[in-house]
Amino acid sequence: MSFIHNDFILQTETAKALYHKYAENMPIIDYHCHINPKEIYENRKFENITQIWLGGDHYKWRLIRSNGVCENEITGDADDKTKFMHFAKMLPKAIGNPMYHWCHLELKRYFGYDGILNENTAEEVWNLCNAKLQEDSMSVCSIIEKSNVKMIGTTDDPIDDLIWHKKIRDENKCTAKVLPSFRPDKAVNIDKAGFTDYIAKLAAAAGIEINSAEDVKKALTLRLEYFCELGCAASDHGLDYVYYNEATDEEVEAIFKKAMAGEKVTRDEAEKYKTAIMLHVGREYAKRNVVMQLHYGAQRNTNTAKFNKLGPDTGFDCISTYNCGEAITAFLNALEIDGLLPKTILYSLNPGDNQLLDTIIGCFQGTEAAGKIQHGSAWWFSDTKSGMEAQLESLANLSILGNFVGMLTDSRSFLSYTRHEYFRRILCNLFGKWVENGEYPADEQQLGQMVVDICYNNAKRYFSL
Amino acid sequence: MSFIHNDFILQTETAKALYHKYAENMPIIDYHCHINPKEIYENRKFENITQIWLGGDHYKWRLIRSNGVCENEITGDADDKTKFMHFAKMLPKAIGNPMYHWCHLELKRYFGYDGILNENTAEEVWNLCNAKLQEDSMSVCSIIEKSNVKMIGTTDDPIDDLIWHKKIRDENKCTAKVLPSFRPDKAVNIDKAGFTDYIAKLAAAAGIEINSAEDVKKALTLRLEYFCELGCAASDHGLDYVYYNEATDEEVEAIFKKAMAGEKVTRDEAEKYKTAIMLHVGREYAKRNVVMQLHYGAQRNTNTAKFNKLGPDTGFDCISTYNCGEAITAFLNALEIDGLLPKTILYSLNPGDNQLLDTIIGCFQGTEAAGKIQHGSAWWFSDTKSGMEAQLESLANLSILGNFVGMLTDSRSFLSYTRHEYFRRILCNLFGKWVENGEYPADEQQLGQMVVDICYNNAKRYFSL
Amino acid sequence: MSFIHNDFILQTETAKALYHKYAENMPIIDYHCHINPKEIYENRKFENITQIWLGGDHYKWRLIRSNGVCENEITGDADDKTKFMHFAKMLPKAIGNPMYHWCHLELKRYFGYDGILNENTAEEVWNLCNAKLQEDSMSVCSIIEKSNVKMIGTTDDPIDDLIWHKKIRDENKCTAKVLPSFRPDKAVNIDKAGFTDYIAKLAAAAGIEINSAEDVKKALTLRLEYFCELGCAASDHGLDYVYYNEATDEEVEAIFKKAMAGEKVTRDEAEKYKTAIMLHVGREYAKRNVVMQLHYGAQRNTNTAKFNKLGPDTGFDCISTYNCGEAITAFLNALEIDGLLPKTILYSLNPGDNQLLDTIIGCFQGTEAAGKIQHGSAWWFSDTKSGMEAQLESLANLSILGNFVGMLTDSRSFLSYTRHEYFRRILCNLFGKWVENGEYPADEQQLGQMVVDICYNNAKRYFSL
Repeated sequence: MSFIHNDFILQTETAKALYHKYAENMPIIDYHCHINPKEIYENRKFENITQIWLGGDHYKWRLIRSNGVCENEITGDADDKTKFMHFAKMLPKAIGNPMYHWCHLELKRYFGYDGILNENTAEEVWNLCNAKLQEDSMSVCSIIEKSNVKMIGTTDDPIDDLIWHKKIRDENKCTAKVLPSFRPDKAVNIDKAGFTDYIAKLAAAAGIEINSAEDVKKALTLRLEYFCELGCAASDHGLDYVYYNEATDEEVEAIFKKAMAGEKVTRDEAEKYKTAIMLHVGREYAKRNVVMQLHYGAQRNTNTAKFNKLGPDTGFDCISTYNCGEAITAFLNALEIDGLLPKTILYSLNPGDNQLLDTIIGCFQGTEAAGKIQHGSAWWFSDTKSGMEAQLESLANLSILGNFVGMLTDSRSFLSYTRHEYFRRILCNLFGKWVENGEYPADEQQLGQMVVDICYNNAKRYFSL
Repeated sequence: MSFIHNDFILQTETAKALYHKYAENMPIIDYHCHINPKEIYENRKFENITQIWLGGDHYKWRLIRSNGVCENEITGDADDKTKFMHFAKMLPKAIGNPMYHWCHLELKRYFGYDGILNENTAEEVWNLCNAKLQEDSMSVCSIIEKSNVKMIGTTDDPIDDLIWHKKIRDENKCTAKVLPSFRPDKAVNIDKAGFTDYIAKLAAAAGIEINSAEDVKKALTLRLEYFCELGCAASDHGLDYVYYNEATDEEVEAIFKKAMAGEKVTRDEAEKYKTAIMLHVGREYAKRNVVMQLHYGAQRNTNTAKFNKLGPDTGFDCISTYNCGEAITAFLNALEIDGLLPKTILYSLNPGDNQLLDTIIGCFQGTEAAGKIQHGSAWWFSDTKSGMEAQLESLANLSILGNFVGMLTDSRSFLSYTRHEYFRRILCNLFGKWVENGEYPADEQQLGQMVVDICYNNAKRYFSL
Repeated sequence: MSFIHNDFILQTETAKALYHKYAENMPIIDYHCHINPKEIYENRKFENITQIWLGGDHYKWRLIRSNGVCENEITGDADDKTKFMHFAKMLPKAIGNPMYHWCHLELKRYFGYDGILNENTAEEVWNLCNAKLQEDSMSVCSIIEKSNVKMIGTTDDPIDDLIWHKKIRDENKCTAKVLPSFRPDKAVNIDKAGFTDYIAKLAAAAGIEINSAEDVKKALTLRLEYFCELGCAASDHGLDYVYYNEATDEEVEAIFKKAMAGEKVTRDEAEKYKTAIMLHVGREYAKRNVVMQLHYGAQRNTNTAKFNKLGPDTGFDCISTYNCGEAITAFLNALEIDGLLPKTILYSLNPGDNQLLDTIIGCFQGTEAAGKIQHGSAWWFSDTKSGMEAQLESLANLSILGNFVGMLTDSRSFLSYTRHEYFRRILCNLFGKWVENGEYPADEQQLGQMVVDICYNNAKRYFSL
């Protein structure tokens, strides 16, 4: 039997029935990812498996580094085959790592490879994949179509002109809707390098002058409106930690002026400015039915030596553990008081926050949607089989799992759609376990309905697609 | 087979034997709950299932809200049947939620209903339950007797005259002992609204003048003595977080005066006053063999808009995540130094604190009881199958599970006694798993003894009943 | 079937094959423990089972205390048999506690006892063990040889003359290499009682005068060199929490002078001095290929009354929960910037830190070793079956489990080598579960290789033995 066989992950008859009859053929709504829309428009093809697999995937880089390989043969000048060989050699030792499953799912679904990748098979896999990648069926748009993806939510800066999104739409380039998501981190991060330069660019993009925090808000609103014209259904915020630090408008303006004058703002000042901007955009999302996604709990660029060589997003980030339950509720509460709390999805990188988030979401539900406030799918370092199971079980314990909007790839790669398959198998396996343990009735119709809802319908409804 | 069949939750033969031969028929000691003794005295009956199920149950309200229902049809003016229908419609989507199990256990045990509650069966269940509720067997005292409850520990304010406890006892109204628990939160919370008014009421109740923190202590001691006359076996404290902030008597008096003058006290001042009061009552508990329960880690009333409409305890609370290990040990240590550490049960709402608490209790054990310091049963948001398993497993890993005082309902409802059944099934299932995995010998006598101890004997002994 | 039978813990055929064919007969490298080398040199024998089991084992003391036994009959004047009887009486109630498994493994492997220890068998076990302990096969060196231990890493103060290590080596006293580990906590802890006295002793040991923090560094370097001459492969640091607080050399010198003058240093000052010393020794470890072990997250001596009677390390410690992810990365980063980050093993006592640590290690890997930065085996209170499984699963999810350096006893007892057996069974059981669930291919060669690596080869390579 192949490793990735028909019933991979599915341990019970109930799980198998639910997966094959309900989950397997549902389309994919990938509402949060980091793929480059230009590559969709250009319908990019890849020269070899290293390009598509190891080109920008810091998950894989970290694993190869953990095997003692020098940087040059991971992200440096070494040739693509050497890099692939290091990956293949490392992989068998990564027992229990989601990478082991992701890779074999991708090899099977996209390359038809049924074996195991290791040092001995690496040459065969290298040749097979590279030949396959020359076929038109392996262009970006073909992969998307073959993967049954109906919507792709990219992640975009407010100053982005969204030219590729427009062209994809206007020229009907892709079978999936490719919609921008609004991620204004750089306008929020008053305490990070490059803030003043960014504000100048934001002013240019919005076509207004920015002389005050109030103007920043106006510019963001204008850009959000532009994003909405292109179908933007969601925003996204990457927060080191969640803060809530109230201030008067005057205070906020003074802080903004200080930063624009090139002075360093204190942590307290930064939080005050950020809170003001976050409240503003939160309200604007609510008015436009745009979902607000809050991602927090990552400590980024921890290794200065490597950062100086390789830059950000190269695999030197880790979990951070802030206690920010009180700030999250204060922030949501401030929006709720005004009746302008948007639909919101909360994601923490700390798996110890599962229960915290699942109890917070229960405090701010509303009539805009069943499951208006959501606890997002297990994210980044938690995007593992056990991480997903923990998130699903906690969500089920403390909320209504049947209303969950489900999986997203959060990926930079076009081969990651199999992560939806992985999630669906894990979901059906969990349902199967509960049913076969007698913890839920063996009511296939009800179970099947929940499966198709979590795999597809809930997200379609939630993002108003 | 019915959903709630004979071996519900029990996955192994060992589990079945332990449950049916040892756990099933043990009486219940419900040492911590929030039911209203007046309703026991008056032997209340309920008009319909919405009254008894949805009347004050914020767990259910939260779930219905999470399904997008408007407040009016949850807690508002809508008719009882509409409210019940919303609950029934939501329930099937709550797969993995303890509510799914609780409801079906209650429907089976108290109403003899063997089916599944959902939108289609709601009418039938509505009619069946409402008819049944008219029977005398469904009065409060009949439910208690039928549930084999031997002791009920209510939660009471020191200013309470305990009139209903006295009447129940004097008129022999209930087959269970109904004993008050001492919960002096309002005398502790110097930083919350209503403190000065409360102190006036406390003075009246105690029959003394209160002009100092010292007088507060005296008044609390007097009220505790009164509670003890009525059989009080336990106290209870709801703390936002555990603090330990030492101060001189002079400082404490100055802080008290400041608060009584209507001035706002700082967080540091509040902690100092609170610490002084907590140390005082802790010592008084020790002198009177009263168990001290400390509940911490809840963030309450997070949604101001809903609080203004509905008040407290309406389902807008969540977990908070403080690091208070150091304060807990400092507080217990201060009592231990004087030889006046009472029997204590620690409960955190943060499931991430399980191991912390299980290592703390091992530092302060004593000869007053086997398991003098306890880690309380999984509480509130953790009162789920997986939450209970996590608490039991952590307690077993780090302490002596055989000395555990076991389950309590913490409930406002008279139908919640099936939560003891739920706990017992989970406990026996865990024992069964360990035995059938070869992690504990298949010694039925020893296992059965631990089961009856954890279900009943340990609590009887611990609370000196 | 005996409780400790051939396939104890091993639930699948894969697990059994992996354990018996690969794990069972691998030698032991016990790279971190607290045994006394003098007892090895003297080849100590023990009079009775209480001496070897209850002599210094605070795990056992805590459990007996938790059963309500008075201190005198645990650590006090009571006779050895009474103490043993209390332990035997308590043990059956400790279902789910690792002590239950540890004891029965030790009774089986070292005493050939195949039954269950409880009140009824205690007399028999007492007699059997005490008779056996008179045999030469139960001397310390015989136990070590019989346990197939190849290396023992003790824990030693820099001022230790290592006389016993030298004699063991020179006189070829032991079949295992007995190597010192460098634990300079007392030179770091500027804020703890006895610091100035300790510095005087350190000066004497190093043969230099110490008048500055710079001199402390010099003295530590000299002592480290001495340790290395005796084969020191690892250092060890016990930190209340991980700090990183930069300061100029001048500041550090001023703080040192203040402390040496008998003045109390502030927390901020203490952190600055400590950071400076930690950075220094970290660099020295890197230069000498000495592994740096960081243990943090213990709150020690929480019970003052008991501390005053019994002193430290007597069972009154618990977990502490600091958020120190940022300090850990800052510390590792500071060493990495200079290219002087040594091989490092991180251990937190808080099991909630598993994922944090497993993401941190991925940020600082290097070419010095596959798995240069490691997350240490589940430690102290987490050294349980579920604690080890959680550590292994988290490590697998987020890093390369195949590179893990594996188990250590961390023990003060010569009977604890069976904890390696316990770990190996748990490891093989986990692998077996993954394979039989289809999460990893049934490739016995690859699995067997990982098992022998984790049990032995990785540690041998990592510690350059």
